[in-house]
Amino acid sequence: MKLADVAKTVNGTFTGDGDVEIVAMASLLEAREGDISFLANPKYAKQMKDTKASAVLVAQDYEGETRATLIRVPEPNKAFASLAPIFGPRPYVREPGIHATAVIGENVTLGKDLYIGPYTVISDGVTIGDGTVIEGQVFIAHDVHIGAGCHLYPQVNIRESCVLGDRVILHAGVKIGTDGYGYTVEIGAQGPVITKVPQVGIVEIGNDVEIGSNTCVDRARFGRTRIGDCTKIDNLVQIGHNVQIAPFVGIIAQAGIAGSAKIESGALIWSQAGVSGHLTVHERAQVGPQSGVKEDVPEGEYVVGSPAVPKRAFAEGLLLPRLVDKLKRRVADLEAKVKALGQGND
Amino acid sequence: MKLADVAKTVNGTFTGDGDVEIVAMASLLEAREGDISFLANPKYAKQMKDTKASAVLVAQDYEGETRATLIRVPEPNKAFASLAPIFGPRPYVREPGIHATAVIGENVTLGKDLYIGPYTVISDGVTIGDGTVIEGQVFIAHDVHIGAGCHLYPQVNIRESCVLGDRVILHAGVKIGTDGYGYTVEIGAQGPVITKVPQVGIVEIGNDVEIGSNTCVDRARFGRTRIGDCTKIDNLVQIGHNVQIAPFVGIIAQAGIAGSAKIESGALIWSQAGVSGHLTVHERAQVGPQSGVKEDVPEGEYVVGSPAVPKRAFAEGLLLPRLVDKLKRRVADLEAKVKALGQGND
Amino acid sequence: MKLADVAKTVNGTFTGDGDVEIVAMASLLEAREGDISFLANPKYAKQMKDTKASAVLVAQDYEGETRATLIRVPEPNKAFASLAPIFGPRPYVREPGIHATAVIGENVTLGKDLYIGPYTVISDGVTIGDGTVIEGQVFIAHDVHIGAGCHLYPQVNIRESCVLGDRVILHAGVKIGTDGYGYTVEIGAQGPVITKVPQVGIVEIGNDVEIGSNTCVDRARFGRTRIGDCTKIDNLVQIGHNVQIAPFVGIIAQAGIAGSAKIESGALIWSQAGVSGHLTVHERAQVGPQSGVKEDVPEGEYVVGSPAVPKRAFAEGLLLPRLVDKLKRRVADLEAKVKALGQGND
Repeated sequence: MKLADVAKTVNGTFTGDGDVEIVAMASLLEAREGDISFLANPKYAKQMKDTKASAVLVAQDYEGETRATLIRVPEPNKAFASLAPIFGPRPYVREPGIHATAVIGENVTLGKDLYIGPYTVISDGVTIGDGTVIEGQVFIAHDVHIGAGCHLYPQVNIRESCVLGDRVILHAGVKIGTDGYGYTVEIGAQGPVITKVPQVGIVEIGNDVEIGSNTCVDRARFGRTRIGDCTKIDNLVQIGHNVQIAPFVGIIAQAGIAGSAKIESGALIWSQAGVSGHLTVHERAQVGPQSGVKEDVPEGEYVVGSPAVPKRAFAEGLLLPRLVDKLKRRVADLEAKVKALGQGND
Repeated sequence: MKLADVAKTVNGTFTGDGDVEIVAMASLLEAREGDISFLANPKYAKQMKDTKASAVLVAQDYEGETRATLIRVPEPNKAFASLAPIFGPRPYVREPGIHATAVIGENVTLGKDLYIGPYTVISDGVTIGDGTVIEGQVFIAHDVHIGAGCHLYPQVNIRESCVLGDRVILHAGVKIGTDGYGYTVEIGAQGPVITKVPQVGIVEIGNDVEIGSNTCVDRARFGRTRIGDCTKIDNLVQIGHNVQIAPFVGIIAQAGIAGSAKIESGALIWSQAGVSGHLTVHERAQVGPQSGVKEDVPEGEYVVGSPAVPKRAFAEGLLLPRLVDKLKRRVADLEAKVKALGQGND
Repeated sequence: MKLADVAKTVNGTFTGDGDVEIVAMASLLEAREGDISFLANPKYAKQMKDTKASAVLVAQDYEGETRATLIRVPEPNKAFASLAPIFGPRPYVREPGIHATAVIGENVTLGKDLYIGPYTVISDGVTIGDGTVIEGQVFIAHDVHIGAGCHLYPQVNIRESCVLGDRVILHAGVKIGTDGYGYTVEIGAQGPVITKVPQVGIVEIGNDVEIGSNTCVDRARFGRTRIGDCTKIDNLVQIGHNVQIAPFVGIIAQAGIAGSAKIESGALIWSQAGVSGHLTVHERAQVGPQSGVKEDVPEGEYVVGSPAVPKRAFAEGLLLPRLVDKLKRRVADLEAKVKALGQGND
């Protein structure tokens, strides 16, 4: 699309060559020739000098040097977002329908306006609510309940009897309801005897939950592993058996929550963090990246480190080398003085 | 099922309303109305006061306050477990048979009483033992050998020539036999030249091994990456090429074992831990959660931290800030005394 | 194959029983009876005594004790590698062709000599270059572009409009183009309101990129998440939205790169490391295993720890307990001396 037409689309004004072809959107730093970008937050103004974007949406009163052609608009970020339907990917539009190759079991209850994609397997006794989209190559085991308005991407697996609320999004490769890690070990006459503990609970996921690619949620030993309404989980996260996650929790990529831990409402578990079994992360607490929680985290606390301690204590720990260095100098000074005193005494 | 009927099922006695409907099982903490729970370990007795369970299985002589109706039985934990067939999920029952949509290659040897699910692909030259269950959407590459009594869940992939023993369980999304990470880098006239090192070994998995969802096991450069009998591996674990894992090893979620490392019998690698390449974790040693092994771990040792050190040394490290603080006070005290001595000397 | 025939194959000489059956290849440490191994690097010579290999390829002038039959050759490592076609797995040979069960959408452009496997789904508007192999059970969403000579293993998913260069290898279970983790949170009258931020960018992958099993790469918020030519990524890695990875980067298993971070050419991110959002790891820098980058890493620097610091500073930190211990002894010594001085003053 020509730059002049882009400007018209966003009701913007520009000075320069309106014939330049705009092909994609990008941030100032990432842009290359043919891209359109935007400057909304003044803190990124310094990126204007070096951006390779061909056009940049800026505020009416922006002043500054740049190679790019400026398109002036009242709200650059909104104008930028409004271009996504033009330059962004074609969205998934799934006309309701069940692909001819989908395998549908017995006693399956299907809502209205469903989409079920190619090579997806819906086992016996499954219930699916209205308007849910299940992409191709998904495997739903028996007696699963899926609510309305959900979107399950390819290669998702949901094991038997698990329950999903409404408007749940499961990204590609998510595995729900795997057996948890549970064994008994007895030392017999011939050596250890390891017996698998049956995992006969389920996973219960609330409404408006989103779970990222290849994340795993184990079923309960008994009862339910639970993920509350509006909780958002990133990619490659591990949720152990019987974990209880409240509504409005955030869990960032590659974090792990061990068996029977409890994450309360508003808590945030950052990337690659771990929470040990049977502990509670209380309301609105945060666990920093790569941190390891070994005891309960109080309400509102931000813990860091492995084992995790409050942020301030962790920061103090980082100062330790400098503290020790100072101390060393003071001790050397003392030694000299004491030596002098000793000689004076002689 | 009515509470009175549940009590009858477990040969228990109760006082109260036998008409209450029981719908599910759960632990005391996790239970909600309609659930039945149990109290076996006295350490959880304090949870009785707040449990939302409608019924709780307790020992004959239990005394304590609770809202729930108590059902008295000789062994509450066993009675509870015995209810799983009633309240738990319907188990997978796979009548032997090969789904019409399964693709079976040439020269495939299939045992008796197999189940092969929809859209599963079994490539040329594969051998599968008696009674093995391979769920839908599994991909087995050529010349793989799978023993008897195995259970492979959906979306498992096993690459060419890998070998599985008997009674192996692979959970959803497990990938066995991926190429390991191996390249040669040469700096040529035009910059670096990166060449892939062919990975022409296999993965060999013993009997009674269980591997959790989305875990990856790389094939050997040459020879075999090995996982010994009865070893149990959790979800999202990474096993590098040529790793040698003995029988009876445990590896918890999101841990990673780098290329050619050796994990001996009875060792336990906790969640998110890492073992560097070519090292040995000796018999019955343990590597704590998030710990990073950078040198061999002696027999029976428990190491913690990154880099990992023996547990006791790590615990001492945690006391360091307090030690330094004490030392600071002693130095300040000395400084005052020395100053006083100096003035006294004047 | 008989040992004598193996020796002939590699133009080697041996003394001993040529009738021994050789069945597989393995390293000295991993070998068992029936295996052939090799000794190229003198540093492994001590493994010769205990190896269980039946035959070992050694240099012409090798002297040393071993149970194995020695086959003498000019270059043991090359001779060993040359045996892979005999003892290693049968390679994937994919005759061009599209499996009858593959679902091919509308407006799909297919190159010459393609292979597309069973139950793979190629959606509308996809373009695939010459000679590319797409194994079974792969799902390619609409408008994806895949270059020539690529190899996509089973259960890969590529979301809409993503772009792959030539000779890209994606191992089993890789997920490209998942929505990134992005939400706005507003505190409304009824509590928090969480809104998903549309992720309307793509992922753009260069030529000669290889990505390991179950790794996830998120699509950009706007614009492109980019992975440069010749970059090699291991298993179970997380790449966040808008991450910019240059050519010739290495990222080892289970590492994670948060949103909008930039990894420059020649950088190496070791296993289980994390790089926080919006940071830059500059050219040829390295981030050690399990390390956590919280600020930009300068060119060529090797950082370690969480938060990551230069290797030397980290090593100094490890010496801290010993330093404090020494200091403690010096302080005790001073205390004794000061006490003595004080008494002398009396």
